[in-house]
Amino acid sequence: MAQQHLDPTDPAAGVVTGDALAGYLRAQATEFLRALRLHRENGAACGPEESVDAARALRRSARRISGSLHTFRPLLDSDWSEEIRPELAWLSGTLGLEHAYEARLERLLLALHRLSGSTAFPGQTGGSAGAGRSAGATASGGTGPAVPTPAVPERGNLTVGAAKAGALLERQLTLARTRAHSSALQALGSSRFHAVADKVAVLASEVPLTPAAPTTDLRPHAAAAQERLTDAIATLPLVTAGHPYNAEALIHGLSPDPAPHPQDGPWHQVRLLLRLHRYAREVLHGSGAPVDVRLLAAGQALNRHRDASEAAAAAAQAARTPRIAPATAYALGVLHADQRHEVEAARFTFQQSWQKQTVSAP
Amino acid sequence: MAQQHLDPTDPAAGVVTGDALAGYLRAQATEFLRALRLHRENGAACGPEESVDAARALRRSARRISGSLHTFRPLLDSDWSEEIRPELAWLSGTLGLEHAYEARLERLLLALHRLSGSTAFPGQTGGSAGAGRSAGATASGGTGPAVPTPAVPERGNLTVGAAKAGALLERQLTLARTRAHSSALQALGSSRFHAVADKVAVLASEVPLTPAAPTTDLRPHAAAAQERLTDAIATLPLVTAGHPYNAEALIHGLSPDPAPHPQDGPWHQVRLLLRLHRYAREVLHGSGAPVDVRLLAAGQALNRHRDASEAAAAAAQAARTPRIAPATAYALGVLHADQRHEVEAARFTFQQSWQKQTVSAP
Repeated sequence: MAQQHLDPTDPAAGVVTGDALAGYLRAQATEFLRALRLHRENGAACGPEESVDAARALRRSARRISGSLHTFRPLLDSDWSEEIRPELAWLSGTLGLEHAYEARLERLLLALHRLSGSTAFPGQTGGSAGAGRSAGATASGGTGPAVPTPAVPERGNLTVGAAKAGALLERQLTLARTRAHSSALQALGSSRFHAVADKVAVLASEVPLTPAAPTTDLRPHAAAAQERLTDAIATLPLVTAGHPYNAEALIHGLSPDPAPHPQDGPWHQVRLLLRLHRYAREVLHGSGAPVDVRLLAAGQALNRHRDASEAAAAAAQAARTPRIAPATAYALGVLHADQRHEVEAARFTFQQSWQKQTVSAP
Repeated sequence: MAQQHLDPTDPAAGVVTGDALAGYLRAQATEFLRALRLHRENGAACGPEESVDAARALRRSARRISGSLHTFRPLLDSDWSEEIRPELAWLSGTLGLEHAYEARLERLLLALHRLSGSTAFPGQTGGSAGAGRSAGATASGGTGPAVPTPAVPERGNLTVGAAKAGALLERQLTLARTRAHSSALQALGSSRFHAVADKVAVLASEVPLTPAAPTTDLRPHAAAAQERLTDAIATLPLVTAGHPYNAEALIHGLSPDPAPHPQDGPWHQVRLLLRLHRYAREVLHGSGAPVDVRLLAAGQALNRHRDASEAAAAAAQAARTPRIAPATAYALGVLHADQRHEVEAARFTFQQSWQKQTVSAP
């Protein structure tokens, strides 16, 4: 099921050593600093869009540095590594929340419009409402480069229950987003952040490799990261996921547990491992890394899985608001089920893309 | 898309004339009378199960007589034909309602259990909850021979919202069923029914064929019935239906229109035309008709489509009950969406089964 499509132990591929890792880390650290400068310059002066772009670039390099430190741990000074990794995770998490709430609200409002049979979204250029969602073509809203950000649709042409549900979600998620925004600003001004930024600035010129690292082969470590991924994928219920309309994702849809569905956990885990595998490939290939369409499609499916899972939880959470009207609760129930089916659809897409075995050079 | 898998104009097949039609109608009329006798004998003395079986057998032959009169209209005395057909439709409709409400309630309660992650149904012999629904394996609750009828599950292990939703549906659908039961009893005792029964009794011995009918070839009429079916199937959105998770069925899921989804209409129509085609095949082949698995699977998918469509409407209708709790409304929203996804799954199954072109002798 989980085929070796990239074989880092292939002797035909040239040896890649710790020097390449150092080069990669320096480049990512430089990206980080550039994004930070951009964020500071744009923060107050420019619109929120530039600020969002800069924050995304910051997170992008923070994740890559952190991921590489994890995968190639034995090649790096362990004290330094263990100190900076949780700080990068904290930063990336704090900066990501605002965008996550915004994307979640947008996803839920678009779904409410689709469920109301309303096709007219501001910012959308025609097309049928059905085109907004299909097994493979949905925007993932995650790490992909081409995330379309249509304006949040108006609630004007929604039906009463859907309109009230939309207003409730907008209130709750906007509040959460505002809080996340404040937290991010606070974090960026904190001494904790300055300490991380200083460490990354040092990394941009001087990578704390172990003495043996410059001549150590990176490929066994990359292979181990890939193995962790394929092992995790092997535990996923892919046979079920490959049967359309298996109705697995909505099981526990009415369970009293407000926590996200435990069945989603292994998929989220695979999403993270896939990311680590992708970063390890970047380290090995440098900037000339060939695009692996299968990895890309699989990653997008898992992003969509995560987004839909969290959107479904937000709808269920909103339905627990005291004193809401039955029509509002009904609309939120339909919305929750719709997003859980998006979860199921994303699993199906992942299964399909993963089965398409590609053979690419390491 | 709509392939000729049965070609009644195939010269290799022997000519089938109006005599075969007369034989078929006599046999169905005899079945009708037998079921009626059974129903009268069991009505008061035996359990409701025998009564249900007898009513089902009555409807079964009423549909076949009515369908054959329609398909082979030019071979039959038109006055007689036009008089008896609406009466048979009235009878079949009146007798079918009670069972329909019962099956609908059962479907909805089973779904509520599945959605609550509850696996223990009285009458079910183990297995995972997920096994209860898959694209191809779901009981259709229609005309298929192997419809499992588990006891209606208890509401004991449902969560609060789901339990209340279940209680509400049980109250509403049980009331509807009771009314349908009274109507059916009233109908069976009415002079209108006795007139139909008398006509069918005459039909059992004497079929009012036109003078030319005994030597008229039936096959062009059967071919026309098949053509009406394939034409109707050609208008279905089968390309969309063949893409899993296309999310079409839930569009208008939150629309204010309480009427069943208009998009379901063409599918219901195909269901009826498929039935007429099947009956025409029975007339042509007599009791030795080979079972066409493709027709069977397609018919089961369309039955499931109809059942899920009506169950979804019942859940939406129940959510309009005044003064229900938000948790109840939420559960009904999840349930509605779940059944609309069943509708979508049934369309996918139909598309899959229809694409499997089979070549069978006419």
